[in-house]
Amino acid sequence: MSHNSFGHLFRVTTWGESHGPALGCVVDGVPPRLPLTEADIQGFLDKRKPGQNRFTTQRREPDEVKILSGTYEGLTTGTPISLLIENTDQRSKDYSEIAQKFRPGHADFTYQVKYGIRDPRGGGRSSARETAARVAAGAVARKILGPDVTIRGALIQVGARIIERERWDWAQVEQNPFFCPDAETAALWEADLDAVRKAGSSVGAVIEVVASGVPAGLGAPLYGKLDGDLAAAFMSINAVKGVEIGAGFGAAALRGEENADEMRMDNGKVSFRSNKAGGILGGISTGQDVVARFAVKPTSSILIPRETVTVGGEDAEVLTKGRHDPCVGIRAVPVGEAMMACVLADHLLRHRAQVG
Amino acid sequence: MSHNSFGHLFRVTTWGESHGPALGCVVDGVPPRLPLTEADIQGFLDKRKPGQNRFTTQRREPDEVKILSGTYEGLTTGTPISLLIENTDQRSKDYSEIAQKFRPGHADFTYQVKYGIRDPRGGGRSSARETAARVAAGAVARKILGPDVTIRGALIQVGARIIERERWDWAQVEQNPFFCPDAETAALWEADLDAVRKAGSSVGAVIEVVASGVPAGLGAPLYGKLDGDLAAAFMSINAVKGVEIGAGFGAAALRGEENADEMRMDNGKVSFRSNKAGGILGGISTGQDVVARFAVKPTSSILIPRETVTVGGEDAEVLTKGRHDPCVGIRAVPVGEAMMACVLADHLLRHRAQVG
Amino acid sequence: MSHNSFGHLFRVTTWGESHGPALGCVVDGVPPRLPLTEADIQGFLDKRKPGQNRFTTQRREPDEVKILSGTYEGLTTGTPISLLIENTDQRSKDYSEIAQKFRPGHADFTYQVKYGIRDPRGGGRSSARETAARVAAGAVARKILGPDVTIRGALIQVGARIIERERWDWAQVEQNPFFCPDAETAALWEADLDAVRKAGSSVGAVIEVVASGVPAGLGAPLYGKLDGDLAAAFMSINAVKGVEIGAGFGAAALRGEENADEMRMDNGKVSFRSNKAGGILGGISTGQDVVARFAVKPTSSILIPRETVTVGGEDAEVLTKGRHDPCVGIRAVPVGEAMMACVLADHLLRHRAQVG
Amino acid sequence: MSHNSFGHLFRVTTWGESHGPALGCVVDGVPPRLPLTEADIQGFLDKRKPGQNRFTTQRREPDEVKILSGTYEGLTTGTPISLLIENTDQRSKDYSEIAQKFRPGHADFTYQVKYGIRDPRGGGRSSARETAARVAAGAVARKILGPDVTIRGALIQVGARIIERERWDWAQVEQNPFFCPDAETAALWEADLDAVRKAGSSVGAVIEVVASGVPAGLGAPLYGKLDGDLAAAFMSINAVKGVEIGAGFGAAALRGEENADEMRMDNGKVSFRSNKAGGILGGISTGQDVVARFAVKPTSSILIPRETVTVGGEDAEVLTKGRHDPCVGIRAVPVGEAMMACVLADHLLRHRAQVG
Repeated sequence: MSHNSFGHLFRVTTWGESHGPALGCVVDGVPPRLPLTEADIQGFLDKRKPGQNRFTTQRREPDEVKILSGTYEGLTTGTPISLLIENTDQRSKDYSEIAQKFRPGHADFTYQVKYGIRDPRGGGRSSARETAARVAAGAVARKILGPDVTIRGALIQVGARIIERERWDWAQVEQNPFFCPDAETAALWEADLDAVRKAGSSVGAVIEVVASGVPAGLGAPLYGKLDGDLAAAFMSINAVKGVEIGAGFGAAALRGEENADEMRMDNGKVSFRSNKAGGILGGISTGQDVVARFAVKPTSSILIPRETVTVGGEDAEVLTKGRHDPCVGIRAVPVGEAMMACVLADHLLRHRAQVG
Repeated sequence: MSHNSFGHLFRVTTWGESHGPALGCVVDGVPPRLPLTEADIQGFLDKRKPGQNRFTTQRREPDEVKILSGTYEGLTTGTPISLLIENTDQRSKDYSEIAQKFRPGHADFTYQVKYGIRDPRGGGRSSARETAARVAAGAVARKILGPDVTIRGALIQVGARIIERERWDWAQVEQNPFFCPDAETAALWEADLDAVRKAGSSVGAVIEVVASGVPAGLGAPLYGKLDGDLAAAFMSINAVKGVEIGAGFGAAALRGEENADEMRMDNGKVSFRSNKAGGILGGISTGQDVVARFAVKPTSSILIPRETVTVGGEDAEVLTKGRHDPCVGIRAVPVGEAMMACVLADHLLRHRAQVG
Repeated sequence: MSHNSFGHLFRVTTWGESHGPALGCVVDGVPPRLPLTEADIQGFLDKRKPGQNRFTTQRREPDEVKILSGTYEGLTTGTPISLLIENTDQRSKDYSEIAQKFRPGHADFTYQVKYGIRDPRGGGRSSARETAARVAAGAVARKILGPDVTIRGALIQVGARIIERERWDWAQVEQNPFFCPDAETAALWEADLDAVRKAGSSVGAVIEVVASGVPAGLGAPLYGKLDGDLAAAFMSINAVKGVEIGAGFGAAALRGEENADEMRMDNGKVSFRSNKAGGILGGISTGQDVVARFAVKPTSSILIPRETVTVGGEDAEVLTKGRHDPCVGIRAVPVGEAMMACVLADHLLRHRAQVG
Repeated sequence: MSHNSFGHLFRVTTWGESHGPALGCVVDGVPPRLPLTEADIQGFLDKRKPGQNRFTTQRREPDEVKILSGTYEGLTTGTPISLLIENTDQRSKDYSEIAQKFRPGHADFTYQVKYGIRDPRGGGRSSARETAARVAAGAVARKILGPDVTIRGALIQVGARIIERERWDWAQVEQNPFFCPDAETAALWEADLDAVRKAGSSVGAVIEVVASGVPAGLGAPLYGKLDGDLAAAFMSINAVKGVEIGAGFGAAALRGEENADEMRMDNGKVSFRSNKAGGILGGISTGQDVVARFAVKPTSSILIPRETVTVGGEDAEVLTKGRHDPCVGIRAVPVGEAMMACVLADHLLRHRAQVG
């Protein structure tokens, strides 16, 4: 057991705090002879990087990754891959106030209760900055999955406003600062979030991640189910409060005959007529798109004062100044993609092991 | 890694198929000197038992548990506890049709693709019958948690009909066949489900599980989060398509100031004014109620014919005769409670290890 | 983590006490479509079975195995295989004395200190009876390894008397009650052990296990080394105090040039001129025979009184009446073979996962 | 599963190659509020450091450790501790010959067969340089064990020459370049090793590690035994071919009455009259000294040409120039101590979890 590792055969161990000298991860179980250079990883990190527009934190981090082990002449060797990202913009802010007061919605209180100590600088270990390591690991995972598996994420809800699915266009995702597949809704979010930011407030969001080209057969009953691992992976992302697969919570309101994804033969191959299952039946992939969603709560760091208590047990008020994302859901999109990649890579290796 | 085990320090390995001679589990990591007899487990199994009313499967199983190891003179010894439940009502039905046709919504297709073989009798390993083993393990978990932790589940949605939270009364849960905390809604579900059953159809459901008395500090960042483990545990239950903690998907539509559970000192103790977090911050319990929900899709076994394909690759139609639950969500309530108990017991032991 | 499980992808969880109703194991991770019936397992259990001659315990157990799950029509299905062996000859002996006195060399004292409770009947969980479950699991492991891998064990030392390696003849192993490959030494052991038995004493032994036909490439640096896993597996057998691979402790006295197993091409294949390495270099199999040995201490249950203390903290004397093996090393031979099979099967699956 | 991690609750993941930019480890599961600075670790690294005398490799590495995460103001926080050691003296040697020829006794052949690729520079991942990370982790482990547990290692055999146990003096270990507790033997080894070095050869060794002050009760039956984990830990060290506990292989020749460590009450405490068990019974510590030994084969890098084959399948000769230890057993002493510390720390945490 390791509290800071995930995956079984493709196994990632992350480490690092928001304001330490660096953060990183060790990726173990990577098959040999896969081409892998820092450039392969950097593109994904750039997508998650802070400070790219006014809707994400203004912290300026180059997020440059270094490969410290596990490759030789540009190829993986089968040994563990150590990835390191230096922290360069840990602003010399005064953390004495939040060292003393628990910020509601943050992990301050629970870390203090559990450990009797916490690194208050920028949220310490509970900072979303740790997700840079996940994105780096996800880039390695994609190498294992190969070019036939495509993993794409999109923001589908910001605050109460939801996209129109009829307008879904993957090409749009690269065209707006929200990874939104619906240009019209993206424009409305821009206004929404400007208002939220000016109010010193924040909103939540819903992210959808879709993996295409996943071979049928990945996953294993009953506690190695693909959807079980995806649920754990997404729930481990900062601020996530809900996860669903396919029809998700909506499936509760369906009738059996509506929920059944009927099958037909199509040119000698099994073809499904719908995908209520989200590409997973009995914990095993069907070969359809794997479709998962997760809900992110509003950023807990806000400029609106909230009632709280101090470490010493006094009532107090707290508000969080500093550089924060008005909607952490935006940068959660590449993180969700990375977690999907990691889970699928793990299950691909596990499938090879058990079934050959 | 074991596909059929869950938990780390409180670790459960289940085995068994719907129509094999028996099913069971091995529960490892149980502390010594806890009183444990078969009677302690049987009450929980009885709650899950099939055939108790017309809304669940008519299969008649006594579900009698035997303790085969790990106790001595009524006390646990610290060695693994082997629990066995015999299958007695495996009806001698003809399974040749479903051996050949993939039932939509079931795991038939994916097991066949993955393994090239499957036990078609009653769904084999993917049958909900396996959850009897989870319920038995949950009873052991409750012994570890002790009497101060109370775990209760309730059905809060059947099909499209949702309870009224204002009418929530835990006492009602024992008074109707649905584990419904709202008597008025329960009466409506009775009519709803009679109609569904007569139509040979099925509906989905949403279950809520609440754990009270959980000490603050359980859970561990970042991949040993309490909510991450709960998400995996609930998603591993048959037919589950979504999981949420506290405000869940609803949190996406909240503003930061609404979502922040404010704190005050109350008689020398920290008191929260709301519980949007569902009792978990940063993956660690706050000491409030731990509140989780999961959505179950409609039972896939229905009497309405659906289009499908055969193992041999021919188009076909299939309908599933037999003894089925029109809403598997009902019997999922005690299963959800058991999984909550198992996850909490595991984290209690993990907490002791790391923090003492 | 599970204290009672071993292996990663081929994973075995054993349970049961010497005098409980039954013992058994759950074998997870077995690939599908392997032929497996109870008869495949029974032969190996018969080899380990007590009471077959005057040199092993006179407890009479049929050790009949039942497969409770994981197969369908004689083939494995990829789901967990539950194996059960009933205890039938738990003699109604009075265990009150050894419940109160710690037998030197046994686990009585440490179980009591650790757990504050122990099942004193026949040694409870620490009885060598548990190894029946390992032997059953080993039979399943051999199915995974296939017919090209041959695993054979032999007793090479009893007390101070060691076989002559020049006389090694595998055929002899089946011809004497000691699994001894050297007929002359076997005859001497017979006299030795008769004397030991009459004296109410016991002696230790050394077992050698050889696996032929193991493909090169199994194992993984650095904490998944094949020899590391073999060491843990053998050391987990009751009474084992030492493990060595290839030249073992003897390697300490060699010079580098003596220890280097030189290589030559032989008909297009790499051929080694010696096997000091015991078939493992850098934790990975070379394709040569995998050769391991382990030392077993003398049976702790003896008729010669020893000084000890009681649970209550009084000085006392104890001697152990009952049905015991004068040399537990004899029945350790099939157990060692089984552990070798389990470790190799696990590594075969792990190799497939990482390297394909 | 992670091939490059060990331990369960105190869990160490190492990474790095001999000639990469750095090596290191992530230590997870460390309890909070333990004082830990780089200076606490450096002393142990200095003991293992190469180039300290003519009997170890002349590679010059400062082996300076950096703590990159997991501490705050000099205390551990319960989050993962990332330790990094830069490689500074990777000599710009030509590795083209050993990239093509498999050095007998090394992992060259098996890495190539398994992975189809290997980093030939200084042995890559299979270099003993990786043990620096273990020593660093061991320093953290000692913090968990606290000052009452003392772990000391000694070299007791070099080549065929064994120390005299009657002359054992722990103080001597610091006085000679061999960590030898017997000054007279140390003097003889000096001459022995000078001759070996001049001959371009190497010899093996045996190391003994003793842990005093270990509380009774650590370890868990049956596959979480303390001795099983020690065996795996020691066998995972480079060049180790054998492991034994207490009387070890010598136990095979003992009679039951000789091997039984008798007990007496002594001032209200249980006192053992001997320690054949090496402080472990039934896999659980007795409270006596934990005594383990491991055998190291002679260094495989020698100046004497050996027959081998090339990657391309041609017969060849190879000898290994460069900076090598004539006896790797010397520097294995602090590595063995570190592994003992790590295993004990892991079991201390596991004990707390299961028994409180």
